[in-house]
Amino acid sequence: MTEDLKPTYVEKGREFDRDMRYIPDRITKDARLPHRGPATVPLWPVEPSRYRLVAARACPWANRSIIVRQLLGLEDVISLGTPGPTHDKRSWTFDLDPGGRDRVLGIERIQEAYLKRYPDYPRGITVPAIVDVPTGLVVTNDFPWITHDLFFEWQDFHADGAPDLWPDALREEMDTVMERIFNEVNNGVYRCGFAGSQEAYDAAFTRLFAALDWLESRLADRRYLMGDTITEADVRLYTTLARFDAVYHGHFKCNRNKLTEMPVLWAYARDLYQTPGFGDNTDFDQIKAHYYVVHHDINPSGIIPQGPDESVWLEPHGRAG
Amino acid sequence: MTEDLKPTYVEKGREFDRDMRYIPDRITKDARLPHRGPATVPLWPVEPSRYRLVAARACPWANRSIIVRQLLGLEDVISLGTPGPTHDKRSWTFDLDPGGRDRVLGIERIQEAYLKRYPDYPRGITVPAIVDVPTGLVVTNDFPWITHDLFFEWQDFHADGAPDLWPDALREEMDTVMERIFNEVNNGVYRCGFAGSQEAYDAAFTRLFAALDWLESRLADRRYLMGDTITEADVRLYTTLARFDAVYHGHFKCNRNKLTEMPVLWAYARDLYQTPGFGDNTDFDQIKAHYYVVHHDINPSGIIPQGPDESVWLEPHGRAG
Repeated sequence: MTEDLKPTYVEKGREFDRDMRYIPDRITKDARLPHRGPATVPLWPVEPSRYRLVAARACPWANRSIIVRQLLGLEDVISLGTPGPTHDKRSWTFDLDPGGRDRVLGIERIQEAYLKRYPDYPRGITVPAIVDVPTGLVVTNDFPWITHDLFFEWQDFHADGAPDLWPDALREEMDTVMERIFNEVNNGVYRCGFAGSQEAYDAAFTRLFAALDWLESRLADRRYLMGDTITEADVRLYTTLARFDAVYHGHFKCNRNKLTEMPVLWAYARDLYQTPGFGDNTDFDQIKAHYYVVHHDINPSGIIPQGPDESVWLEPHGRAG
Repeated sequence: MTEDLKPTYVEKGREFDRDMRYIPDRITKDARLPHRGPATVPLWPVEPSRYRLVAARACPWANRSIIVRQLLGLEDVISLGTPGPTHDKRSWTFDLDPGGRDRVLGIERIQEAYLKRYPDYPRGITVPAIVDVPTGLVVTNDFPWITHDLFFEWQDFHADGAPDLWPDALREEMDTVMERIFNEVNNGVYRCGFAGSQEAYDAAFTRLFAALDWLESRLADRRYLMGDTITEADVRLYTTLARFDAVYHGHFKCNRNKLTEMPVLWAYARDLYQTPGFGDNTDFDQIKAHYYVVHHDINPSGIIPQGPDESVWLEPHGRAG
């Protein structure tokens, strides 16, 4: 990677602020108006084998969509392209695929699908992204709605016995829980790692561990965040927990303690890891390569730590089935 | 700190190699020939209140000499000057002292005592260093011999009941143990942190944890490294263990596990920490400030992590008295 292609993540003196403007299109059943969320946006029809989910296993936001796709049994309906773990300023590449090209889209970079639709696309080239295979155009990269719509709009294609990831009766509480998890945990680790000053870091650290303490307590008498069954909220928390000891603890300085030192949260994380769809879509080598190589301004050497020991994820979790 | 005063530690593509050339002078009783070690070097006489030990609490090599001085009860015989935790290319400063000057030597930087003796001193300005107070000249910075001689040459001034840090009957085995600890552990963490390539790091990581596994096993049926009493070998191991979770685990990527995850070694380290001379000379804030601020090429932001929780060092160690 040449120097001028190295991205920067830390802005000196600044608190980290995630750009939350995404391509807001929705894919809905018969291109109907969605029940919730952005509705005055372009609508695309649900159609099996038409779309390709592009999602790097390394990326926590993308990892969510891979997990949900599998939990719902949509593997044969929406195909999956997986960029490699590292990227440069031009973002994610299909470097793990033969010839360095996605075998369905035929492109080397997901950027190409963005630029095909918007030649001057001004914002981050992110995953997950859904691409319309016939035209090669990116449809959406609005990650919270991607997983939402995989559940609500693709129900005709869900596997028998697919979990109810969004139980109606719990929706209001679940939205509150997910919002806190997003602000304080999913984003909270980045707020620590990308802090541009000691003060911003110190404040971020305090916020993050206050939220983890809340979760440790919430999960003490519930197997999952919303009760006895897995919901979207668990998927969203899991992807951060899975990366915690491998990268956030050291690389992002989230080091009050390791995840393994919070007994409830650690057992909860292992419980999910050992559930089909979670652990089998968690690749610690890719996770470590992504953070330690891509964030050159935090880890100039690019050296990837060997630890921590991953085998502990398979230890019995002791949470009742 | 301006950019050109920032030291560099990592040499790209290179394995870390510590420069072991020090000022080899010895301070001996009546300036006699020492029984062991370098003898064809300038000899200075033991004399109470004549010398000042300059040793930063942050530095593991210096920390040894502070601990040994206290274990032997030499506080009133050899005074102590303590540079602050951070430094630049010109090395350690007395920035914690009133007016930024050591109150006995009257200097702002330990470098001044080196240059007073050797105006063109070509090697690292290191601590611990012993300074001859009347002349202001540095006498020695040869850290393994400094603590050796505090024991063997200053015995007339040891406190009643001072520990036998170098039991004669164990000397041969102890030298072997200390050599392995020096090469594999004390230096081993630096070999990980300052590795200039992934290959050098991977090799260093394997070596380090092989040695820690050996120690975990050795200490399973011994309270201390050499048996029932504290020796110099314990002091030398302790200063690395005390820094392990605070800096080496994250900053130097020594992250197979935390020290707290090796039950025997962790109990052994707490046992020492709770022994007068050890924990009272361990300053985690200074330790973290030193590594995270001074090694700008490893941690460009200079942000100092808040973790880990230090209170665990006071938990009962359960090793028989």
